[in-house]
Amino acid sequence: MLSPEDASHPGLARTPTWVQEKLSPKAVNYIKRVHYWVETECIPAEPVVKAQLAKYGRWKTPPLIHELRAKAKKEGLFNLFLPKSFGKLSPGLTNLEYSCCAEIMGRCYWAAQTMNCHAPETGNIELLAKYCNEEQKQKWLMPLLNGETSSAYSMTEPDKASSDATQIACRITRDPDDPETLVINGRKLYGNAMWNDDLSVYILMACSDPDNPNPWKRHSTVIVPKGTPGFTMVRNLTIMGYDHAPEGHGEYLYENARIPAANIILGEGRAFEIAQGRLGPGRIHHCMRLIGQTERAYELALIRATDPRKKPRGRLIGDFDSNIERLASMRLRLDSLRLVVLNAAHTMDVHGNKAGRYAIAQSKILVPKTAADIIDECMQMYGGQGMTQHTALPEMWTYARFVRIADGPDAAHRHQVGRDQLKTVGPIKERHDGYQKRYKELCDKWDVKYETF
Amino acid sequence: MLSPEDASHPGLARTPTWVQEKLSPKAVNYIKRVHYWVETECIPAEPVVKAQLAKYGRWKTPPLIHELRAKAKKEGLFNLFLPKSFGKLSPGLTNLEYSCCAEIMGRCYWAAQTMNCHAPETGNIELLAKYCNEEQKQKWLMPLLNGETSSAYSMTEPDKASSDATQIACRITRDPDDPETLVINGRKLYGNAMWNDDLSVYILMACSDPDNPNPWKRHSTVIVPKGTPGFTMVRNLTIMGYDHAPEGHGEYLYENARIPAANIILGEGRAFEIAQGRLGPGRIHHCMRLIGQTERAYELALIRATDPRKKPRGRLIGDFDSNIERLASMRLRLDSLRLVVLNAAHTMDVHGNKAGRYAIAQSKILVPKTAADIIDECMQMYGGQGMTQHTALPEMWTYARFVRIADGPDAAHRHQVGRDQLKTVGPIKERHDGYQKRYKELCDKWDVKYETF
Amino acid sequence: MLSPEDASHPGLARTPTWVQEKLSPKAVNYIKRVHYWVETECIPAEPVVKAQLAKYGRWKTPPLIHELRAKAKKEGLFNLFLPKSFGKLSPGLTNLEYSCCAEIMGRCYWAAQTMNCHAPETGNIELLAKYCNEEQKQKWLMPLLNGETSSAYSMTEPDKASSDATQIACRITRDPDDPETLVINGRKLYGNAMWNDDLSVYILMACSDPDNPNPWKRHSTVIVPKGTPGFTMVRNLTIMGYDHAPEGHGEYLYENARIPAANIILGEGRAFEIAQGRLGPGRIHHCMRLIGQTERAYELALIRATDPRKKPRGRLIGDFDSNIERLASMRLRLDSLRLVVLNAAHTMDVHGNKAGRYAIAQSKILVPKTAADIIDECMQMYGGQGMTQHTALPEMWTYARFVRIADGPDAAHRHQVGRDQLKTVGPIKERHDGYQKRYKELCDKWDVKYETF
Amino acid sequence: MLSPEDASHPGLARTPTWVQEKLSPKAVNYIKRVHYWVETECIPAEPVVKAQLAKYGRWKTPPLIHELRAKAKKEGLFNLFLPKSFGKLSPGLTNLEYSCCAEIMGRCYWAAQTMNCHAPETGNIELLAKYCNEEQKQKWLMPLLNGETSSAYSMTEPDKASSDATQIACRITRDPDDPETLVINGRKLYGNAMWNDDLSVYILMACSDPDNPNPWKRHSTVIVPKGTPGFTMVRNLTIMGYDHAPEGHGEYLYENARIPAANIILGEGRAFEIAQGRLGPGRIHHCMRLIGQTERAYELALIRATDPRKKPRGRLIGDFDSNIERLASMRLRLDSLRLVVLNAAHTMDVHGNKAGRYAIAQSKILVPKTAADIIDECMQMYGGQGMTQHTALPEMWTYARFVRIADGPDAAHRHQVGRDQLKTVGPIKERHDGYQKRYKELCDKWDVKYETF
Repeated sequence: MLSPEDASHPGLARTPTWVQEKLSPKAVNYIKRVHYWVETECIPAEPVVKAQLAKYGRWKTPPLIHELRAKAKKEGLFNLFLPKSFGKLSPGLTNLEYSCCAEIMGRCYWAAQTMNCHAPETGNIELLAKYCNEEQKQKWLMPLLNGETSSAYSMTEPDKASSDATQIACRITRDPDDPETLVINGRKLYGNAMWNDDLSVYILMACSDPDNPNPWKRHSTVIVPKGTPGFTMVRNLTIMGYDHAPEGHGEYLYENARIPAANIILGEGRAFEIAQGRLGPGRIHHCMRLIGQTERAYELALIRATDPRKKPRGRLIGDFDSNIERLASMRLRLDSLRLVVLNAAHTMDVHGNKAGRYAIAQSKILVPKTAADIIDECMQMYGGQGMTQHTALPEMWTYARFVRIADGPDAAHRHQVGRDQLKTVGPIKERHDGYQKRYKELCDKWDVKYETF
Repeated sequence: MLSPEDASHPGLARTPTWVQEKLSPKAVNYIKRVHYWVETECIPAEPVVKAQLAKYGRWKTPPLIHELRAKAKKEGLFNLFLPKSFGKLSPGLTNLEYSCCAEIMGRCYWAAQTMNCHAPETGNIELLAKYCNEEQKQKWLMPLLNGETSSAYSMTEPDKASSDATQIACRITRDPDDPETLVINGRKLYGNAMWNDDLSVYILMACSDPDNPNPWKRHSTVIVPKGTPGFTMVRNLTIMGYDHAPEGHGEYLYENARIPAANIILGEGRAFEIAQGRLGPGRIHHCMRLIGQTERAYELALIRATDPRKKPRGRLIGDFDSNIERLASMRLRLDSLRLVVLNAAHTMDVHGNKAGRYAIAQSKILVPKTAADIIDECMQMYGGQGMTQHTALPEMWTYARFVRIADGPDAAHRHQVGRDQLKTVGPIKERHDGYQKRYKELCDKWDVKYETF
Repeated sequence: MLSPEDASHPGLARTPTWVQEKLSPKAVNYIKRVHYWVETECIPAEPVVKAQLAKYGRWKTPPLIHELRAKAKKEGLFNLFLPKSFGKLSPGLTNLEYSCCAEIMGRCYWAAQTMNCHAPETGNIELLAKYCNEEQKQKWLMPLLNGETSSAYSMTEPDKASSDATQIACRITRDPDDPETLVINGRKLYGNAMWNDDLSVYILMACSDPDNPNPWKRHSTVIVPKGTPGFTMVRNLTIMGYDHAPEGHGEYLYENARIPAANIILGEGRAFEIAQGRLGPGRIHHCMRLIGQTERAYELALIRATDPRKKPRGRLIGDFDSNIERLASMRLRLDSLRLVVLNAAHTMDVHGNKAGRYAIAQSKILVPKTAADIIDECMQMYGGQGMTQHTALPEMWTYARFVRIADGPDAAHRHQVGRDQLKTVGPIKERHDGYQKRYKELCDKWDVKYETF
Repeated sequence: MLSPEDASHPGLARTPTWVQEKLSPKAVNYIKRVHYWVETECIPAEPVVKAQLAKYGRWKTPPLIHELRAKAKKEGLFNLFLPKSFGKLSPGLTNLEYSCCAEIMGRCYWAAQTMNCHAPETGNIELLAKYCNEEQKQKWLMPLLNGETSSAYSMTEPDKASSDATQIACRITRDPDDPETLVINGRKLYGNAMWNDDLSVYILMACSDPDNPNPWKRHSTVIVPKGTPGFTMVRNLTIMGYDHAPEGHGEYLYENARIPAANIILGEGRAFEIAQGRLGPGRIHHCMRLIGQTERAYELALIRATDPRKKPRGRLIGDFDSNIERLASMRLRLDSLRLVVLNAAHTMDVHGNKAGRYAIAQSKILVPKTAADIIDECMQMYGGQGMTQHTALPEMWTYARFVRIADGPDAAHRHQVGRDQLKTVGPIKERHDGYQKRYKELCDKWDVKYETF
């Protein structure tokens, strides 16, 4: 258990008791440092970052971010997400412990980036570490771990149902004249923008063997360096109008883009093997960051509710019991979400990512939708100002809404959960049949008429 | 009744039967022309307008819009909203008839503007026509009616509860040395951006007599020309990140801005009299445009649901019965909203704006929230692309969300409706007391025990 | 238009203006008389009816009801629902006009019964009138029209998906030895209870030709008199625990029950033809009665909100603005429902039941769910007492919930609406393709780059 | 951690990992025995209990229940809820451990009663144990602990706002001629029915000192034996029509009822002291039982979804992806509720009931509403049969709806939570002011304009 002082620290005050009990002293120390970092270096710097984007160009990483990344690295606040399997590089936090850090990082849109804990970097790093050979690791993974460059993940296509990855059509062929060279043709959506100076590499999932009778073996994952001729970014894809610069999202064209066959990860036709190993922890991180962000939105609502300048009909906004009830509802739902995600994190710690699949889906489905709804309610409390740049609420809402659709629409995840549930019906039916048999026995015993409906 | 051919015209096909019965041939003709206009001149031109904003500057009205406005004027599609009281200038449509036009205009964000039927112009024109003296009308109203310039309305302030207009603090004083000159000091939010070339005038509500014992007589409405020294726009207020250029929303500073006392509308201290006459029809127009916009979003959902390129698990999106049910729910709710707004429009036609207050509030509260929810569902059907510039859905959602908060948060309107309902309890209680009395009589008659709870 | 006095009559005060305009003087007169009847004879008598059910047995129609039926008949308030096609028997009200009566009847659970306007009687009478031969009409229809007896409708079966009527399995065969005799075997659910003394006849839908290649021609509708040997009621089916006595719902067994072939309606194999002609108006009546019932629940909420004995924290329940907002929300939603149903009724008047299919489904799907939700909120306002027999709210909720599932779950109706919507996509797609063509033209005209996503 | 075999035991399979880790072997053993008990002795016996109620009278505890209580006592499955403070009488389970038992008990409406773990018995036993003197304990507590009799709690009144207990008006006075005798006058609602043979005693909260300046010292808690002259039950209060026999709810009249002053608990004027100590654990038990009940409803939904007899349009109900999504949504929400309640239980274990106040409120507000919604959805899956006695779903829904209003409407609890939240704003504001200060520093450092909104 934490000391009372630690337990009431603002970075830990809403952490459930059962989680507080499981935090190692090291984790508590990290949580407090991350909290200090985000509160002192990140949140107050938000408008500075905006000003630097206006000043230096929207696709340049602002100097302030570069400085913070260097500083975080020096202070040992870099790559906190790395699991123990990374050895010395990892701080050794459990999923549960890191989740507490992630919540705090989520309070500022780009705070995770200063600590090299942002998406898609974390997923990419895990992927490269898990599936690359040594040479590939030296070349592609180490620069990411060192924070020297950044990477993108490229999977979705414009003309396919993206919730069904077997349909991915972007084509990889071997150059018949040079079998050690792969030729890529196709279109892709999303993945961080090529326009960003710091980006260097795309992890691409594409179709290398369309005629393979096994649809799960038709695709390969390859590394495509930025600058590859024939590989261009068509446009920045905005999200609800936001360009999300300087990382942003792109639309891409591959026109006879050529890469060495050495860039294939794990082996040809093994893309789905790789894809399955990804995403679990990333989804939990996303969800915890969303919770942190929503906590900040909630703080803004509390501040508005007690703003002495805002007194409709002579009373504070927070004096109206309709608003008191709204604040309560938000608090209750937000705290429930935290319990859901932390339970998923701990389940993964104990039973592994695969066993945690259900709990991860539970987080993925419930958190973004509810978070967006809560933030929307907070905006509403700010009246007209709630939608302007007066606060960060509009960006928060957009991010929550975006996470709801990223990694697949929630309907697809619900579908999976529902089908899994239906598969459990066998023993339940047996049990219910047993009730009938026993009921009949009891009818005999108590001399009561046996009735069926 | 319409001819079957007219009734199935795409501009009239979802118009309820009882409304179709009330449309004059003239109105039907206008509706069909507006439909053709929006479908042919506006919707296809949307990306051109975007391109022109990029090319000529975000605060210049695009040439295409200018051309369309001139053409609409020539074709008699200008100022369609003007009620009959405007005599020859008015096309003579009822609120109900114009509502059908407004729905169609709403399909394109700026279509109403091409017909000089956009907010806040319509409300401002009605205000100036109703409350200005002849001289003021010549000077300020006629250019608006002619479409030569545009106007803004300025009421909300940053440091006050904007749902309570009696708190408006922006100060108008008479120059002691020149009593025919008014001096203005204060800050204002919203109102179309001064940066727009075509804008020429602000209608300002401010405090001229703070010590008047009657709080409803402390404020005046005045006309402030753009270019008045001391009157500046501090920044563009974005809405969910959108600048809404080239009209946009501004934040304003009045620092000893001086205007002639002749710019007072109706008389000093009569701002609330003026404010009360405003807004009714405007809210209905807003709501009908939102419905038109949501219809377009719905069409996009139908198109996505039948897009042969999008077949998750081998089936069209519209083959999944979860989506079939979603499409049904959206349709049912959207059509209900139309019934609500058209009922409000007709109530205003028959009983006047004041008697229509409840029906207007019903529209104002129900339409924007539901419209935003439906559009959100349509976005979700588009997967990741639903939030990008792939469709106009993100802008549509933002507009619906914005209308929900514009003219006051829905909680304020609900509060008013609820209080009015509570006032009706007197005769209801009497009636219920009557039940008891009669019940007692019946107990006697039927020889049954009289019971109370 | 109504006179102002009529328009503010409590039976007409919430009737939308466009409906008031369409009411004939005769209809207004009926509405006012129905209102007086329900308020004076029915609502206050509710506890008397309960007492009589306790006194005389739950399956005896209470004497008070019998008296009221006789009186209503004498006063010309009987069979108000009969459409004009019934000639002299019909009061000549349109669907729209009768809907206004039905709303008022709905204020008391059994008021419609006193006027012979209750379900399933109304649907059965329409069915018999439309499809019976003269002899059948004399024998089965006239006693119902005269109010001398009552009837039930029997369709659903326990072991089949009742939303798919082609699966109905209850079997009708001709006795090989006596082809003019039909033999029935099977089980049925619902249909008014045989235990009720006044009930005399069942209209049964069953399978007479299982091998017909056309699944829509396999079933017949026949008349089964109560008392037919081999036809028994197994048990009373309760609804949320209510027995709904003295009419109630039954579970039935047909064991070689024999009826004359003359009891076939319309002809063998024509059950679906008959089924299609049923239900439309009945659904509208159900919905309007639900609205009337919900209005009464709402009155109870207003009364509770202003009850001087209930002052938590020293304030009336209606002084809390959370409750004020709740009352407003309920009012707004309830009034929207009325617009939906009245629009459906009028559409049927003008275009016939078939053309009104969509509007009927809109009512069927939206009204029961929302009505149940509103009544639930009213119960909540009554605290613990809201669920006891202190008010009629629990029975009201149960009835609304029941109507939601009666005639098929709302999901089935949504499915139908959604599929119909998807069929409309053809011309919409064409129109959208037209936008692209026109956009291309405009790009040329304005010298702007043509972009596609 | 549990062994894999234990972890997949149906009584533990949905227990979150973090909770499984905390269960002592003793607790696991109890959970498995309770599971066996409920599945074997209770659920199959439900129709027998109904038959016995019909046979022996609705207010007699059925013989089967009596037998089970005796057997459970013998088997050591009695009074499982008793906290460790009860010494040898207590099985020594933590709140968390007992919560897992309570969930299972909730699967059958009366299973808790067979183990003497039902409301209001548990709360009453804790109250008597905590606040009675030795003599009172011998007389009133021991028979309850031994399961020889049962008790009721009486607080709510018909003419007062029951969410504000200071308004309780039922009057206790001392007989001026015999000061050791208390005289009680007033009306009370709820509290188990006096008609039940096994009930012997009421714990009454009433007003003994109305003029005390401290409103929290005006009330006393006393013990009123059944049979006290002047103390009568007026009627059974039904809940949504259910009489909830044989325990039921009553309405009571005190007309000069006389009890010895020795029946005062803790001392005159100390009722609020007592009330505060009650309810916490009881609410958690209620919520866990509701979750268990909802799990059973969910099993019924799964069974219906795979019932081969129900194939609308030729497919199982569970083949429709709308139903698959519904099943998923229910599962996800239900599991979230369990996390909320178990977190509350553990918080109480570690920090005490008082510190757990927020977590208890979170359970109380979220669980009953969501449970009722889920059960409603399960009913809907059963079509018309969902509301009949075909399944226990209607009774389950009613119980969940009842728990929502019992112990005060959720609005009152939300109000409390919201007010507590508003009190936390001080340090949050300080932190936000700090952001501004730091932002200003950063502006200087990075040479960027300081902007405020």
